[in-house]
Amino acid sequence: MKSFFSPRSIAIIGASDKPNKAGTVMVKNLRRLGYTGAVHPINPRLSQLFGFRCYPSLEDVPGEVETAVLAVPRRAVPEELRKAARKGVRAAVVATAGFADAGDEQGRALNEEIRRIRDAAGFRLMGPNSIGTFSPAAGFTTSITTLEPLQPGPVAIFGQSGMFASGFARELASEERFGVSRIACLGNKLDVSEPDILEWLFADLETRVAGMYLEGVRDGEAFRRAASRLACEKPLVALKSGKSELGRAAASGHTGTMAGEDAVFAGLLRQLGVERARDFEDFFDLLEGFARLPLPAGDRVGVVSITGVGCVLWADAVEGEGLRPAALSPKTAARAREVFPDWAPVRNPVDMWSAIERSGVEAAYRVLAGALLDDPGMDALLCIFTLIPESEFDAEALFSDLRRQRPEKPLLACLFGGDAERQLEFRRGLRRAGVPVFQSPARAMRVLGALRRRAVRLERWAREMRC
Amino acid sequence: MKSFFSPRSIAIIGASDKPNKAGTVMVKNLRRLGYTGAVHPINPRLSQLFGFRCYPSLEDVPGEVETAVLAVPRRAVPEELRKAARKGVRAAVVATAGFADAGDEQGRALNEEIRRIRDAAGFRLMGPNSIGTFSPAAGFTTSITTLEPLQPGPVAIFGQSGMFASGFARELASEERFGVSRIACLGNKLDVSEPDILEWLFADLETRVAGMYLEGVRDGEAFRRAASRLACEKPLVALKSGKSELGRAAASGHTGTMAGEDAVFAGLLRQLGVERARDFEDFFDLLEGFARLPLPAGDRVGVVSITGVGCVLWADAVEGEGLRPAALSPKTAARAREVFPDWAPVRNPVDMWSAIERSGVEAAYRVLAGALLDDPGMDALLCIFTLIPESEFDAEALFSDLRRQRPEKPLLACLFGGDAERQLEFRRGLRRAGVPVFQSPARAMRVLGALRRRAVRLERWAREMRC
Repeated sequence: MKSFFSPRSIAIIGASDKPNKAGTVMVKNLRRLGYTGAVHPINPRLSQLFGFRCYPSLEDVPGEVETAVLAVPRRAVPEELRKAARKGVRAAVVATAGFADAGDEQGRALNEEIRRIRDAAGFRLMGPNSIGTFSPAAGFTTSITTLEPLQPGPVAIFGQSGMFASGFARELASEERFGVSRIACLGNKLDVSEPDILEWLFADLETRVAGMYLEGVRDGEAFRRAASRLACEKPLVALKSGKSELGRAAASGHTGTMAGEDAVFAGLLRQLGVERARDFEDFFDLLEGFARLPLPAGDRVGVVSITGVGCVLWADAVEGEGLRPAALSPKTAARAREVFPDWAPVRNPVDMWSAIERSGVEAAYRVLAGALLDDPGMDALLCIFTLIPESEFDAEALFSDLRRQRPEKPLLACLFGGDAERQLEFRRGLRRAGVPVFQSPARAMRVLGALRRRAVRLERWAREMRC
Repeated sequence: MKSFFSPRSIAIIGASDKPNKAGTVMVKNLRRLGYTGAVHPINPRLSQLFGFRCYPSLEDVPGEVETAVLAVPRRAVPEELRKAARKGVRAAVVATAGFADAGDEQGRALNEEIRRIRDAAGFRLMGPNSIGTFSPAAGFTTSITTLEPLQPGPVAIFGQSGMFASGFARELASEERFGVSRIACLGNKLDVSEPDILEWLFADLETRVAGMYLEGVRDGEAFRRAASRLACEKPLVALKSGKSELGRAAASGHTGTMAGEDAVFAGLLRQLGVERARDFEDFFDLLEGFARLPLPAGDRVGVVSITGVGCVLWADAVEGEGLRPAALSPKTAARAREVFPDWAPVRNPVDMWSAIERSGVEAAYRVLAGALLDDPGMDALLCIFTLIPESEFDAEALFSDLRRQRPEKPLLACLFGGDAERQLEFRRGLRRAGVPVFQSPARAMRVLGALRRRAVRLERWAREMRC
């Protein structure tokens, strides 16, 4: 499996110099991302490609080739895979589509043919209809879409969609949501499927949190075993589509997968302690929370909000997530009162607008967030911001300090309105300070609830020695 | 009521020249937004303020003053309101907080005092604890936070939160989501409350769509009557917080309101045909949909998606919203096939990646979206994008054309990943083309479902002559 993520050498079969061709983008990506392994573009018409030496055929490459990626028309795939087998590659990624996902008989026939080739050869195969992998630290990718460098970090993401090594990778990079260890896009899953990745991530030292998108599972028992083992060791988030009958039909059209009964799957995930995401927003929210925050020691939550509406929406969301409002200790209340006008009520959730008017925005956040984080009766803190000229201050600096002072307590943020560009900058700053940012108090509590569930589960496991 | 939204003259009691003070920002906003009515800052120490002539007291202003806004300490509010009564103002906005929302006895006593003053005087009062209104076309606002010009348009937004005339107004402007007719922030609702605004918006020619945020309703029967009348005439979206017991307590702390039983309220809204938003994201999504799109003539939806995962997630979402997938007519399928490779299945939802590889991205979107929109069996179309260099084209130009060609069919978009800055630009471009943009296929279907429900309701009303 390692050969899919950080091989010593790769051959690109179907390498090209035509703009926007899959075989062009792949080679350029390896150059741009600074991959330090050997890169062998295969193209009979070229001698050099983006600074790499080209070979007419895979068999002409001197020495070993660990991994091959195929971006050739589907009719050519079997013959190229046979050559890869003869060359002794350990892993092959087939980017080409038009097999189990195609509408025609020929696609199905070709699919069976490459299955036979793989079975005889013994290499592992990712795809077909897969854009493969991305390992940001190694600068390695087989994506057919242009990628920019992505911050290396603890989160592995994989699934049947190519979005992870294309549009989503770009979004994660520019939002600075979290660092990524591995991305794998499994496509049609003719060979490599979820259990293989789950098993490999269990032992992957670069990965501390994992997220998977599924349209269906082929071998339920293998999946259960591998997911259970990984979810004991590392937080695991799953987004499963194909919930409805129509969705299951669409999944079959997308990657030729059978989706199975949704209720069965939901029950299984609950039992294994896998967090099920509701949609992609929830999926990335949960991964950001697990990547950036410690697990909370208890369920008592404090809130400091620039807007009263934030307090009300938070109150509506907190209980449903198995959390509860913390009461301010007398000491905390006294510290808080210093920044408020006399008449203002001081209670949790803290509606801080009148404190900002009286004491200034930086002082209000510093005193209030600091006091609540110091309160031993508070297990986590949510700060709610809005971005208007009257509320601007150096939040990155303040919240970096707070995170350093109280690294054991989850500190979450949520942003209500403001100029879109300024919101983006502000999110990046808070994330650099180690504070994840969510779109609403409900989403923040959803993530904190998941962190708390994992904390409770780990405590129970520790007692029962089940892990 | 008109005096709250576009008065001929306004006095700012508590006007100031100190940076970030409420009374400073208010006067500067009126200057920046180009309000053409008479502006009278009231401040005994100043003779001029940001180019407006200052008066020592409201009584010194020559001639009539239609509207007064108060940004003075709470103890000074009763006396200033008495002066306003003597001057004969028609509307007063009290921005000052610390009345029913305060933690102390004095706040409650002051609250009763200003209630008596108002009852005797007969002017209408917005607040206290209200930042008042914003009418973008008139350049008029009483907000205490700095505002930039906002595109005038068909949507009125009001409710108990000041966010609408601060952070959210900035976000709506910079996201170019939709144009706004009126914003009203009601604060504690001592006098003016939802029924007043609902009644006034019924007749307001600038408003075609309305959205309200509520923490609770005081006079249920008046609310029911006014909401029912408005919802017949114009689409009405409601976001109600205070669902949980904890949320109700928080609402009481925020603006001193009793939230009432959530189930009763939910039933009432359903009966009146008011769309209930789940959260602020949903609230703005629904308003964007109603503002930009025609109501669909039927429930058959087509999809053109750059990613298979978009097709699957759409299929999971469509049925729950009372919509169904459209079948491609033979003519549509034949047109679509021209841009696909031979082997690709052509069906709805259309997974278009192989068409992009074969025919280029602009041609693929043009042919596929055009063919589906032309299909008489298709009542609405969702286009799903991802922003990677390989998928870039002038979407604003293409979708402007498509909207012009088929103005009667709702055309929605959804964006999966890409650089954050580029996503923002792309959303703005599509919105300028008249196409609303949502974060996921589920959110887009949620909005289309609401539009369809209104279409069905209007058809039924027309049959029954109830409206």
